[in-house]
Amino acid sequence: MAEIIHRNEIEQILPRINLLSLMEQGFAAYSRGEVTVPPPGELLFDDPPGDVHIKYGYIHNDDYYVIKVASGFYRNPEAGLPSSQGLMLLFSRHTGVLIAILLDEGRLTDVRTAAAGAVVAKHLAPNCVECIGIVGAGIQARLQLLHLLAVVEVNRALVWSPDETEFADYQAFFAKEDRDVQIEFTQELRDIPRACNLIVTATPSTQPLLMNADIRPGTHVTAVGADTPEKTEIESAVLARADILVVDSLSQSNSRGEVFRAAQSGAINRERVVELGHVITDPQLGRQNDEQITLADLTGVAVQDIQIAKAVYQEQMTLKG
Amino acid sequence: MAEIIHRNEIEQILPRINLLSLMEQGFAAYSRGEVTVPPPGELLFDDPPGDVHIKYGYIHNDDYYVIKVASGFYRNPEAGLPSSQGLMLLFSRHTGVLIAILLDEGRLTDVRTAAAGAVVAKHLAPNCVECIGIVGAGIQARLQLLHLLAVVEVNRALVWSPDETEFADYQAFFAKEDRDVQIEFTQELRDIPRACNLIVTATPSTQPLLMNADIRPGTHVTAVGADTPEKTEIESAVLARADILVVDSLSQSNSRGEVFRAAQSGAINRERVVELGHVITDPQLGRQNDEQITLADLTGVAVQDIQIAKAVYQEQMTLKG
Repeated sequence: MAEIIHRNEIEQILPRINLLSLMEQGFAAYSRGEVTVPPPGELLFDDPPGDVHIKYGYIHNDDYYVIKVASGFYRNPEAGLPSSQGLMLLFSRHTGVLIAILLDEGRLTDVRTAAAGAVVAKHLAPNCVECIGIVGAGIQARLQLLHLLAVVEVNRALVWSPDETEFADYQAFFAKEDRDVQIEFTQELRDIPRACNLIVTATPSTQPLLMNADIRPGTHVTAVGADTPEKTEIESAVLARADILVVDSLSQSNSRGEVFRAAQSGAINRERVVELGHVITDPQLGRQNDEQITLADLTGVAVQDIQIAKAVYQEQMTLKG
Repeated sequence: MAEIIHRNEIEQILPRINLLSLMEQGFAAYSRGEVTVPPPGELLFDDPPGDVHIKYGYIHNDDYYVIKVASGFYRNPEAGLPSSQGLMLLFSRHTGVLIAILLDEGRLTDVRTAAAGAVVAKHLAPNCVECIGIVGAGIQARLQLLHLLAVVEVNRALVWSPDETEFADYQAFFAKEDRDVQIEFTQELRDIPRACNLIVTATPSTQPLLMNADIRPGTHVTAVGADTPEKTEIESAVLARADILVVDSLSQSNSRGEVFRAAQSGAINRERVVELGHVITDPQLGRQNDEQITLADLTGVAVQDIQIAKAVYQEQMTLKG
């Protein structure tokens, strides 16, 4: 009988898992070619608007395969429901038997995405971070800051949103988390690159928000929001200027995200782009000094789902003895 | 909270569902273009060998979307496990919320596949069926005969298998089902087309088993086994000779199944091929007399999964009041 792990159990398990290390190992295995990850499945709805992504795959020589369903229905909050929904399924790779159902309602996707931002910062952020800049104030924009605080020594953050009403929720989220961080807010986009040299963008924007003219030398940018061909948050000139350009998945960057758009417009040469797993295993590919501009474009890879699903299941089994 | 429907509950619900009608409605909607069914996802393993198929989609103007995972790990019986495994997931198409998990372990895929064979026979079998011929003796070969007996007036069946040991299991299965049918067995393939004018092939063969020289006028053949580009059960000359050629999905027949192979070798012109949903809604496209040879090539369409998952969930809700 499959183990059914409910949302509240997942919440109790998450603090017991070393997400940073799990994601590093996953990205490294992926870039070594040790992970089979077919192109994600997709369903798009328009009334009400929603998109469903099915990501799946397995790590070679592992005992499992994993299927993850994650959706975003952006009008859900109007009905008091989270926009993120979904679940993860863990199967035996030897028999096909369903081993575990993780009823995470999209929570594990949110968390593994934020953990990838922390992995990137660990390898690409400048030595001295003055202030973390967060473009966006939704759930992912909160989790990104939360996970960055675990890997970066800094106690200041500046958060941008066009919607002032999100600021109180953002502040309340961190009040509960009890971190030593002073968060300020702005509705002026340029304030972010002026004040911050570690910036994460986490919005569903389809227009560039970070402009090349505003980016200072030494800045690192992680672009998390653009996961479709249409979405973009960064002016392509920033990618052209960056000394180091990193993606979580080279193959996915052929069809979505900032690198896809910049390559399509001719602003960058794809041969410059390095995969995150290679940066993790070879420090020579990471930041070399505090003057370089670095940029990482994350579209989300199924190996992250495989890693977190396995870890949650194994921890659940440990807890149950 | 999602409704979790276990295998034993599914078994109790299945006899309460009019599968034939559900499948007819599903195929008809599919052929009218009212169903969105992206290409299935696939994972292939080789040690031990196994294949995983992820089928998903939704019927327009419906309240649900469905994801189905079905796998075949053919060495499972050596470990006392069924080779078929899997589950179905029913989601709200309006919010993405997970509504139901059907822990069917591949059972609903087996059943909806057999029900499609009955739909085909209802529309294409000759008026007078002398004897039903079943090529193969595994679980699908049993279910096909079981479902055919509900739509065809005949009490004789001839079953072929290269493995004599399967005959006793086949006989035992029908002893439990208590149907008025006399089943005989053969290890000589030609006996099937000589004795039978309604034939179903349900094997994982990669070599033709039914040869053109043996097929008599007036015969109907339903090919169920070939669901990959490599598998085949029917000599392409049978397809070339058939008066009516039907597939469950024209788009899937571009890449898998008997029609795919026959078209690729130039034995048939794809323009002759008719979709099952059109045959259901327009009797002019079905069998016109008892001399015609008809052939239906089924590769399995997600609309079948959508229909059966919805029906099981709705019946479960009715039972629970």
